[in-house]
Amino acid sequence: MARKKEFDVVGFGEVMLRLSPPNKERISQGEVFEKRAGGSELNVVSGISSLGLRTGIVTKLPDNEIGKFIKNKIRFYGVSDDYVIYDRSPHKRLGIYYFESGAHPRKPTVVYDRFGSSFTTLTIDEIDPSVYSSTRIFHVSGISLALSDNVRQAVIQMIKKFKQNGVIVSLDVNYRASLWDETTARDVITSIFHDVDILFVSEETSRRMLQRTGTLEEIMRGFAKDFGIKVIAATERKVISPTRHTWDSRVYSAQEDRFYQESPYEEIEVVDRIGSGDAYVAGVLFGIIKYNCPQKALEFGNAMAAVKNTVPGDLPACDFDEIEQVVKSHKKDGSESEMNR
Amino acid sequence: MARKKEFDVVGFGEVMLRLSPPNKERISQGEVFEKRAGGSELNVVSGISSLGLRTGIVTKLPDNEIGKFIKNKIRFYGVSDDYVIYDRSPHKRLGIYYFESGAHPRKPTVVYDRFGSSFTTLTIDEIDPSVYSSTRIFHVSGISLALSDNVRQAVIQMIKKFKQNGVIVSLDVNYRASLWDETTARDVITSIFHDVDILFVSEETSRRMLQRTGTLEEIMRGFAKDFGIKVIAATERKVISPTRHTWDSRVYSAQEDRFYQESPYEEIEVVDRIGSGDAYVAGVLFGIIKYNCPQKALEFGNAMAAVKNTVPGDLPACDFDEIEQVVKSHKKDGSESEMNR
Amino acid sequence: MARKKEFDVVGFGEVMLRLSPPNKERISQGEVFEKRAGGSELNVVSGISSLGLRTGIVTKLPDNEIGKFIKNKIRFYGVSDDYVIYDRSPHKRLGIYYFESGAHPRKPTVVYDRFGSSFTTLTIDEIDPSVYSSTRIFHVSGISLALSDNVRQAVIQMIKKFKQNGVIVSLDVNYRASLWDETTARDVITSIFHDVDILFVSEETSRRMLQRTGTLEEIMRGFAKDFGIKVIAATERKVISPTRHTWDSRVYSAQEDRFYQESPYEEIEVVDRIGSGDAYVAGVLFGIIKYNCPQKALEFGNAMAAVKNTVPGDLPACDFDEIEQVVKSHKKDGSESEMNR
Amino acid sequence: MARKKEFDVVGFGEVMLRLSPPNKERISQGEVFEKRAGGSELNVVSGISSLGLRTGIVTKLPDNEIGKFIKNKIRFYGVSDDYVIYDRSPHKRLGIYYFESGAHPRKPTVVYDRFGSSFTTLTIDEIDPSVYSSTRIFHVSGISLALSDNVRQAVIQMIKKFKQNGVIVSLDVNYRASLWDETTARDVITSIFHDVDILFVSEETSRRMLQRTGTLEEIMRGFAKDFGIKVIAATERKVISPTRHTWDSRVYSAQEDRFYQESPYEEIEVVDRIGSGDAYVAGVLFGIIKYNCPQKALEFGNAMAAVKNTVPGDLPACDFDEIEQVVKSHKKDGSESEMNR
Amino acid sequence: MARKKEFDVVGFGEVMLRLSPPNKERISQGEVFEKRAGGSELNVVSGISSLGLRTGIVTKLPDNEIGKFIKNKIRFYGVSDDYVIYDRSPHKRLGIYYFESGAHPRKPTVVYDRFGSSFTTLTIDEIDPSVYSSTRIFHVSGISLALSDNVRQAVIQMIKKFKQNGVIVSLDVNYRASLWDETTARDVITSIFHDVDILFVSEETSRRMLQRTGTLEEIMRGFAKDFGIKVIAATERKVISPTRHTWDSRVYSAQEDRFYQESPYEEIEVVDRIGSGDAYVAGVLFGIIKYNCPQKALEFGNAMAAVKNTVPGDLPACDFDEIEQVVKSHKKDGSESEMNR
Amino acid sequence: MARKKEFDVVGFGEVMLRLSPPNKERISQGEVFEKRAGGSELNVVSGISSLGLRTGIVTKLPDNEIGKFIKNKIRFYGVSDDYVIYDRSPHKRLGIYYFESGAHPRKPTVVYDRFGSSFTTLTIDEIDPSVYSSTRIFHVSGISLALSDNVRQAVIQMIKKFKQNGVIVSLDVNYRASLWDETTARDVITSIFHDVDILFVSEETSRRMLQRTGTLEEIMRGFAKDFGIKVIAATERKVISPTRHTWDSRVYSAQEDRFYQESPYEEIEVVDRIGSGDAYVAGVLFGIIKYNCPQKALEFGNAMAAVKNTVPGDLPACDFDEIEQVVKSHKKDGSESEMNR
Repeated sequence: MARKKEFDVVGFGEVMLRLSPPNKERISQGEVFEKRAGGSELNVVSGISSLGLRTGIVTKLPDNEIGKFIKNKIRFYGVSDDYVIYDRSPHKRLGIYYFESGAHPRKPTVVYDRFGSSFTTLTIDEIDPSVYSSTRIFHVSGISLALSDNVRQAVIQMIKKFKQNGVIVSLDVNYRASLWDETTARDVITSIFHDVDILFVSEETSRRMLQRTGTLEEIMRGFAKDFGIKVIAATERKVISPTRHTWDSRVYSAQEDRFYQESPYEEIEVVDRIGSGDAYVAGVLFGIIKYNCPQKALEFGNAMAAVKNTVPGDLPACDFDEIEQVVKSHKKDGSESEMNR
Repeated sequence: MARKKEFDVVGFGEVMLRLSPPNKERISQGEVFEKRAGGSELNVVSGISSLGLRTGIVTKLPDNEIGKFIKNKIRFYGVSDDYVIYDRSPHKRLGIYYFESGAHPRKPTVVYDRFGSSFTTLTIDEIDPSVYSSTRIFHVSGISLALSDNVRQAVIQMIKKFKQNGVIVSLDVNYRASLWDETTARDVITSIFHDVDILFVSEETSRRMLQRTGTLEEIMRGFAKDFGIKVIAATERKVISPTRHTWDSRVYSAQEDRFYQESPYEEIEVVDRIGSGDAYVAGVLFGIIKYNCPQKALEFGNAMAAVKNTVPGDLPACDFDEIEQVVKSHKKDGSESEMNR
Repeated sequence: MARKKEFDVVGFGEVMLRLSPPNKERISQGEVFEKRAGGSELNVVSGISSLGLRTGIVTKLPDNEIGKFIKNKIRFYGVSDDYVIYDRSPHKRLGIYYFESGAHPRKPTVVYDRFGSSFTTLTIDEIDPSVYSSTRIFHVSGISLALSDNVRQAVIQMIKKFKQNGVIVSLDVNYRASLWDETTARDVITSIFHDVDILFVSEETSRRMLQRTGTLEEIMRGFAKDFGIKVIAATERKVISPTRHTWDSRVYSAQEDRFYQESPYEEIEVVDRIGSGDAYVAGVLFGIIKYNCPQKALEFGNAMAAVKNTVPGDLPACDFDEIEQVVKSHKKDGSESEMNR
Repeated sequence: MARKKEFDVVGFGEVMLRLSPPNKERISQGEVFEKRAGGSELNVVSGISSLGLRTGIVTKLPDNEIGKFIKNKIRFYGVSDDYVIYDRSPHKRLGIYYFESGAHPRKPTVVYDRFGSSFTTLTIDEIDPSVYSSTRIFHVSGISLALSDNVRQAVIQMIKKFKQNGVIVSLDVNYRASLWDETTARDVITSIFHDVDILFVSEETSRRMLQRTGTLEEIMRGFAKDFGIKVIAATERKVISPTRHTWDSRVYSAQEDRFYQESPYEEIEVVDRIGSGDAYVAGVLFGIIKYNCPQKALEFGNAMAAVKNTVPGDLPACDFDEIEQVVKSHKKDGSESEMNR
Repeated sequence: MARKKEFDVVGFGEVMLRLSPPNKERISQGEVFEKRAGGSELNVVSGISSLGLRTGIVTKLPDNEIGKFIKNKIRFYGVSDDYVIYDRSPHKRLGIYYFESGAHPRKPTVVYDRFGSSFTTLTIDEIDPSVYSSTRIFHVSGISLALSDNVRQAVIQMIKKFKQNGVIVSLDVNYRASLWDETTARDVITSIFHDVDILFVSEETSRRMLQRTGTLEEIMRGFAKDFGIKVIAATERKVISPTRHTWDSRVYSAQEDRFYQESPYEEIEVVDRIGSGDAYVAGVLFGIIKYNCPQKALEFGNAMAAVKNTVPGDLPACDFDEIEQVVKSHKKDGSESEMNR
Repeated sequence: MARKKEFDVVGFGEVMLRLSPPNKERISQGEVFEKRAGGSELNVVSGISSLGLRTGIVTKLPDNEIGKFIKNKIRFYGVSDDYVIYDRSPHKRLGIYYFESGAHPRKPTVVYDRFGSSFTTLTIDEIDPSVYSSTRIFHVSGISLALSDNVRQAVIQMIKKFKQNGVIVSLDVNYRASLWDETTARDVITSIFHDVDILFVSEETSRRMLQRTGTLEEIMRGFAKDFGIKVIAATERKVISPTRHTWDSRVYSAQEDRFYQESPYEEIEVVDRIGSGDAYVAGVLFGIIKYNCPQKALEFGNAMAAVKNTVPGDLPACDFDEIEQVVKSHKKDGSESEMNR
């Protein structure tokens, strides 16, 4: 039977088990871990789904009980698991990361245990090719480019195939020094920039790893000029303490040659900072798809990031009404009711 | 056998099951709800009991396991359940509300599921008439006037009967736009104002729903002049963020034609804001009964409200010694020891 | 854009919030409820999904945070929420049930609070008509027929429409004396028997409510003869104690005029008995769809029911491999390894 | 104002903080204790309250936060705290006991830390004398006689005063070898037997500590003859494993010179055995008060004890309807429905 | 003052993080994992420490927060971490296993994720050579021989070095088909049998993997004859259900040419079966060291195994007094008091 | 091989069971206590162990399950239990304290129940004399001098013996008004000052209890001059609210006649303030032992205190790397990465 599937966004990336001690407890103490699912690209697509669009994820999970847990979580967040690949090899395993939150002057801590995970063994042949024509946007992050050679090759080829099908390509550079060195990262990432339509990159990464110079605006405009990227978004998080952040961002529309910005979210009461950058990406992509409007993209991106910081876990657990409300309140500067009743 | 019972305050109102996710979790996520009892009037009388006076509650509960849970909680807080009515009808049910706390910019959320509860079916015939002569003060809130026709009629008639028995009547206007419209509320509430001795009302409600004008002091004095109300208390909460509030209030004594106020409680570290207004009412009524002194009433009211904000659950869980200590510390501006040892 | 959807089974029924105290605690005690989703028809379709087929549920949820929780749970179990209807009326509410497990001689207790729920306001006009052609089997239980007049009418009309589209109709009689009387139930249920293809009914209900007589085999064969029902399954649970059950069942294939039975599951270590009957239905429907074989249907039904009893919550949380393994072990009488490694 | 109070039963005894690791965890491991209130006489009166009669407890608690916790728990179980005495001395403390449940062949473990508790400093002068005329029955256990000299003297004098007021005296011998030696216990206890109306004593204690001889029936009759005790109840617990008990008992009515017995409760699924003997006492006293019928007393006693075993914590958390149901089911041998719906 | 530090037993083996859902929950469900430390050889030495002897463990842990957790746990159980090696390589990781308990007919499930762990990279050069002369007994299991080539080589060489220092060598064959095939296992294990003094092996493994024939007694005697092994212990677990086991064992003393056996532990109420075999080894080694008596070794081994089954987690959490008490009770057939007070 | 066992620091003091309600709950409410070990001197030595040095504790515990729990916790934190004494007397008990955290304006609360604990019965004869030559530093606090006469005598004699063995003596004055009056405290403490090498005392205690005058620097220098104390450390905690503290301290080196100070830790996000003073002592002693450098001592002391405030429980749960990192970040004023990855 022929079956036609349509997604607004499909992501590609590793999904990990996240283990974190409750409250302010430490990894090295206590008797309980909270178990959750997390991963940059899953965070993005689940954020978009929670706002009401259809998304899917291409990933690879071990075919065992813990893989089943992750599959259930993917569904729970409204993300299609149609393109999930299962690893039945003897050394199949799920990547794990341990997260401990902080309190000034104790910093949050992340310990990764993702080496040799099932995802890193993924090759492009395992991916159902129907995916290339089933979505409007394809999103991937620089993490996936860093994990293993075959995954890197898979990403590069997937991008080609998506482009051939007219799919918009979104890339979050998300440079992680612990995964690869700057030179390799720069070479690989710039090699695919010509196929990227929407780019997420921080000022710091632009300057250090990508060695761009000039003002931030010059840098953003430069990505558009040099590589034909259409939308560039740059975020800035100011960390006052592990529980107090300020969030700001800027969006550049190449077509209009115009920068979008609003007043930053200040005094965010941070419950869990993990995934807030991904929530931003989700909000921006949502704004682009739904409204085709950089201003809306900026506003939804910032609101999603701010709200994500206040929610435990990697994944935003909000919906469209809530985010719209937050956007409105933000503009009004809190002259709103103090409670949703 | 004749049985003479005496209470300082008897409240009338719905008691609900409160379900809230732990910590900063969301209603729509997670696997556990904390279960508690809550309801404006119960909160008030339990607050008064915790300070050392005798109170009771007139309410109606379903005659099942969950009703039993609430009955136990009522007792736990030192409130008599002698006047609790049990509903044995097939559609008996307990009202429920779900509460999710916030973190800036995420607001707290309340979802009510109280429609058709056993309490809304209560009629005055079900109430043991001995209650009318068993208490010094009768307290009720505007919520009870809004829930259903028969409950509204019951309240109106109860007030009459209490007045006939020389009982002091306390009313917290507590206007909830989700329960009834402003016109109906204004008509009903002003119709009973002549029987009210102690009134709790916010400035905003006075202006909008009750359409009073002038300065706050003029408004407060107006209630005394127009309706013969003896004590009027007006509170003001400033919400800096879901976890930081400032609390202030003013008490007007008609007899003395005098306003009482003290410096506000600032930088309250809010753990759970629900019930803090009720705790204020409890403190004020306690001050009036125990000391017959508006200054004391103001101080106990403010301290109770401030402390309630720092305690999880609807109900204050303090005692007289603690509140007296807080009142003292507040006056001294924190030059006290930092810990109770 | 045209969108073609295909399900193996679509269910129709109320989904409730299930609140239960942990372990052996009581509803009337303690400070925590475990929160889960449950409902006879959801239990059935989620069981089928966990075995690997595609299912969906037609239901109506309040458009609020607690409705969102249920929606997430539906997805978590792999059931499509495409046909979920949202109630935005002021009195929208989710049905609830409280469950307390037992220990001999204390019996398990269920308290329902489902009256006036959003689901009971559902009318057939709200249902997306594409559902009638999107599934191979439609499943409903007698509970849905008892909840309210409009829901009953909706069920009756839905069955007509499904039949018109060649969909197989499955009915679990699931008679609940607390919801309707025997006479009404008998009239309504027998009136739709002519449209039923697969029937689940216990011997006791057949005799008492449906007033069938003769041996169990005669009764089962009678349903086929009198109403043209093709498959009839009858289950028998023996309760040794709240934590020890025996499970047995019998399947009748009208086409072959043959009864299927295997040795019962004995000494089941019951962790949570709720939903085990639904898990049985899931297993039987799965066996029919996947293998078109009454023997397989019987085996999967029994194994699903037995395993469900050992898992907390309404919903089976197993997969095909596990159930197949249990079926095999059951035949071998436990000469297997004692642990899955 | 004169205030007349009436109780059906007033108990006298120490109330302790009970700390137990959850589930099958050990005291020496883990990071959490469940906190509860417990104490033989409180268990008895709270059991009677849960069945619907009015009770109170005379005890002494430290005037601090942990004493407040216990006071709240006393109220929660519907027991009056009117006669609770508060210790404000520098060495005030609450007795504690740690309880760990077992699993064959691991036995349950109790560790006491009650030495020097506030209760042991109680003297009769501290007791409000209005108690002596406020109740129909006074209940005390042998534990209170063993705790300290002044408490022992208080008990002896209290019994005198209660008798002078026509109050029925109930004694549960409850001999604990860890608290006092057999000779002292025998002397003290037999010295008050002449004032006892209702006696609870096991066969083993009768033989060993009290040095009675003959058949159990002869022993029971002997207490009546020698001391004028009117009702004697003897219980027998058979421990198959820490999670499987059998419970049996016998009641002797001196007036009728008749023994009452019913078939034992077998295969009780023990969740928490602590307090089951006290629940028996509660059931028997309830039966005597409510029905003045040894048969009813026996049945309520046995059912209360059996149900208590299935509930976590010291205190029975049942009500009259439930126990009446259990009594009925017990007679019918389980041909009942398997669940309370 | 110089203080001579000596261990009674030093173990060598991998220590893993054990993650298990609470109670009867499933790995694929729920939001919490209980976190514990586990590993066959650690289980053995911690069991011996809990009985009062001095032990240590040679193992390799990642130098990160999760490694620190394990180190803390090792200490908690009284095992010296003096010989723990820390892995600071980029791919350092701790082996993990997930454990889900069962309930008939659902079997317990173990999922391993130990491939590529820091332990598998251990080489003999990393081990502090002072260990070879610091202990009376060296214990290792067949698992360590199966994990990686370098670990296998390390074990073989360690045994040589220990033997050269007059250390007694204890081996638990512990064959795991998932780790290596029978032929390799047989070759490796029999190649070291000549250096083994105390051997733990099941009848089944003796017959299948080791291809021994004859009666169990002949097999046990055969190990002594063929390889010079001095003590051979064979255990037998009968699994009635996941929560009911019977435990039996037999010890052969080559010197006396005598078999020791006692009546099996029946109807063990299994809370957590993991580690019970290791607890047996601990008990036997303790009996040999402390009493040099096979009868005592047998009794302590059986009691340790039985008690371990009733305690959550891998590691026995008992002490000498408790085990001695269990041994005594077992001989008396339960005519003991039912509770430790 | 002979192995010389030496401790860097041995502490002497009472170890208590700490019971605290989770999160912001109250002692008088809720159903769970978190159970931990705590005690000033244990906190100090465990802090030092966590930084990598060898420590032990001399204390006395009841020989029961709860004593075993404490013993396990001592080991868990890497502190030797070689010198722990066990109390087997009938009235053996472990001291307890209850701790409730605060939120402005609710203060934290501590309730002690330590009277008559096993530790208070300790006499010097029970201490293994090998301890006097096994350590470089001996640490004790003023609390131990206040608990009972025999403990006071033991401390005084121990100090003599340690001095005779050339051990450095460290004293934290830690004056607690609830334990003894100022005059007695002054007499006892100054009587041992001549044997003290390292002194921890706050400015306030110096002025009030010890009646020292002048500037803080004069006071600190005075202790050196008058009693020959070599290092004096004075701390200052500013409590902005229960969740926000500032921490500052000053160290005086008599040899150099020099004061050391750094910028205070501000805006510490306090999770649990208990034990932060002890963590400071640990850091200072560590700095002295490891670096023999007052600057390092100051920095490690401040960082340990600051971090301890952010961790639940009495005991610091950090390691050397973390504290070194915090020291570095503190100097750089937060221009660091915001997370440990």
